[in-house]
Amino acid sequence: MERRTLYGVGVGPGDPRLMTIRAGEVIRAADVLAYPVNRSGESRSRSIASPIIDGHAIELPIHIPMTVEREPARATYDAAALDIDDHLRAGSSVAYLCVGDPLFYGSFMYFVARLGESHEIEIIPGVISLSACAARMHMPLGGRNDVLSVVPATLDEDALRQALEQADTAAIIKVGRHFKKVRDVLRAAGLADRATILESATGEEERVTALEDVTQDDAPYFSTILVRQGELS
Amino acid sequence: MERRTLYGVGVGPGDPRLMTIRAGEVIRAADVLAYPVNRSGESRSRSIASPIIDGHAIELPIHIPMTVEREPARATYDAAALDIDDHLRAGSSVAYLCVGDPLFYGSFMYFVARLGESHEIEIIPGVISLSACAARMHMPLGGRNDVLSVVPATLDEDALRQALEQADTAAIIKVGRHFKKVRDVLRAAGLADRATILESATGEEERVTALEDVTQDDAPYFSTILVRQGELS
Repeated sequence: MERRTLYGVGVGPGDPRLMTIRAGEVIRAADVLAYPVNRSGESRSRSIASPIIDGHAIELPIHIPMTVEREPARATYDAAALDIDDHLRAGSSVAYLCVGDPLFYGSFMYFVARLGESHEIEIIPGVISLSACAARMHMPLGGRNDVLSVVPATLDEDALRQALEQADTAAIIKVGRHFKKVRDVLRAAGLADRATILESATGEEERVTALEDVTQDDAPYFSTILVRQGELS
Repeated sequence: MERRTLYGVGVGPGDPRLMTIRAGEVIRAADVLAYPVNRSGESRSRSIASPIIDGHAIELPIHIPMTVEREPARATYDAAALDIDDHLRAGSSVAYLCVGDPLFYGSFMYFVARLGESHEIEIIPGVISLSACAARMHMPLGGRNDVLSVVPATLDEDALRQALEQADTAAIIKVGRHFKKVRDVLRAAGLADRATILESATGEEERVTALEDVTQDDAPYFSTILVRQGELS
């Protein structure tokens, strides 16, 4: 553990035992623990790490607005980066806790962009939620000559359709309020009966449902739809 | 740890500290440790786990032929599945050690296919090498509306080109003797100067090289080329 260093720490998909040994070392030793917090005041990454948080560190919760517009989020990252910068200049080590992996569709890259020129940064990769989903379903994400595509549900219908065409396995992430649009695209492509939706795999509220068994038109933000087109042998 | 259960255990990309806490528990407690071995008799997954292998378990190395033809590999998986089946029926727990994640382009899915009907299987997801590559390079794999595609270098040139077209980030895996073909496709697409090749990230022989600085026409099998087309902010 180095002073004046920012650590991006992946805490994995939900089960605290899916943190890495290295993540545990860094979280235990860091002077400052930073983590994103939603508007209800909850932090998934802190919650995953909580069994090994012993209270010695200063905690720096970062309230990230979940808006479609980018300006509020940018202003938040700017302000939080200044706070982190202060701690680093004062000689502290700072660990920023990330659900899953720090560089896989998370907020840590915004701090790399803001602080990477002026500070040492070390990134501890973590288990991504897709791996947890696959493990739960016993479904390979890819094998041999397969193309696996990770596709945000935020894309428009045409872009979704194109991304699905090229992939043997598609993992559609950030489903939430885009559920109905994604289901429509999958149905039109004849793929809906090959699709499964997972909510917070390995978390306490884990659920796995065949897509066509879902009755509502919404899904939690942390849902993933896995679609497998090819066969493996 | 349950008797008569097959565990697929991801040991992560190379650094033993990137094993999960759960992987450590299972490896320490398993009656039998199985792992793939190459023709030189080396096992990457056993080597990663070696700091926590204490010698109490029976070891079951599985020699997997690296051929383009599928029959020799199928025969190997059939025979190895019978060996594992024997141990499970005798009441043992068996942990199969996988580099990275068990269901991400690995051999474990072949054992799920052969043993999943007759035995309990639990899969412990692991950190994939792509996350380690991204961490090493401080390069996001994806963010916001990005599509990330994982593309095996074994595809032909047309399929490679198509897969690259749809992706904001492409991770080209299993590069090895396909290096020259991949470089040609990337040059033709104007992407070669946005590509970086990584050899065994977090392993002891880790190397990171800009694609156009590579002088030979081959690369190690466990190389990954990361190409980022879009900009993030």
